[in-house]
Amino acid sequence: MEEYKRLKRELVAKGVIIDYYQDTMLIPNGNVAKWDLIDHKGAAAVVAVRKDGRLLMVRQYRNALERETLEIPAGGLNGREEPTDRAAMRELEEETGYTCDHVELLTSIYTTVAFCNEKIDIYVARDLKPGHQHLDEDEYLNVEAYSLEELKQMVFECKIQDAKTICAIMTYAAKYEGKLSDY
Amino acid sequence: MEEYKRLKRELVAKGVIIDYYQDTMLIPNGNVAKWDLIDHKGAAAVVAVRKDGRLLMVRQYRNALERETLEIPAGGLNGREEPTDRAAMRELEEETGYTCDHVELLTSIYTTVAFCNEKIDIYVARDLKPGHQHLDEDEYLNVEAYSLEELKQMVFECKIQDAKTICAIMTYAAKYEGKLSDY
Repeated sequence: MEEYKRLKRELVAKGVIIDYYQDTMLIPNGNVAKWDLIDHKGAAAVVAVRKDGRLLMVRQYRNALERETLEIPAGGLNGREEPTDRAAMRELEEETGYTCDHVELLTSIYTTVAFCNEKIDIYVARDLKPGHQHLDEDEYLNVEAYSLEELKQMVFECKIQDAKTICAIMTYAAKYEGKLSDY
Repeated sequence: MEEYKRLKRELVAKGVIIDYYQDTMLIPNGNVAKWDLIDHKGAAAVVAVRKDGRLLMVRQYRNALERETLEIPAGGLNGREEPTDRAAMRELEEETGYTCDHVELLTSIYTTVAFCNEKIDIYVARDLKPGHQHLDEDEYLNVEAYSLEELKQMVFECKIQDAKTICAIMTYAAKYEGKLSDY
């Protein structure tokens, strides 16, 4: 593979949950180009499986899409150093009220590699204990539960379009479907 | 669901492939908050299946991750109005050299809904005709081909981490695996 070299990184603007940089890159053909970089601290998400086999989902308004979406519980890290399994358990509890003693890594994704370094570690949580939702001050969401088959169908029909949620549902189905008799 | 209202949208910076806005939002609890919005024109991607059943993948350097990634062929739209099936066929030809007469929509994703409106329509292409790669001036990538089983394993092992690629592989597998005897 040809070598790219970053000559310079300049902060363009500091945002609320992202920062925007422009990188000056030396391209293998000798050209110099400006590339965008959106810096994000990373996030954690969780496929939370109830004892009846249904998965917990959250429905919330997304300003970027100007509509509601159906997603797995997730949230940004409190700093890059926060362990993502802890963050996944915290977000599960905050958004759904359910708690669990541990989670298991399902997969780890980069949401949009062409211009952003956001990484989301996606976990599986089982043996859930119900409790009380305690959302952030500016957060409003509804908790719902669906079977894996219903969720897959919603992906096929483009009714679920959030990338982390599709990665999570489809990877979980490929790994565990047909092996769920205990749940 | 409670109502959020956007009071104002301000352009913070125009980038190369994205623009960065800050939105002033009226939250249902009466608070006013600043939210980031990264505006992206959208993209198209393609699960390209050869007659031997192997899928075409591209390996390229990604500055945001400071390493190479393995992804399905994809590229940004030439303006928001470009039909995404055309864009998928163009990117397939540019990046891999393969052409096809038509593509079929597999699913449609939003890469990172918390702060970005980037949508990627993901297509399936079959009946591929080999030809010559013709990359953009600053683009360098290698074309590889893998079985669906190999690709799924790479997702489980976090060797493939690009979200659109995981969405594509896993949704394609769920929809078509076991129905591939013609290819």
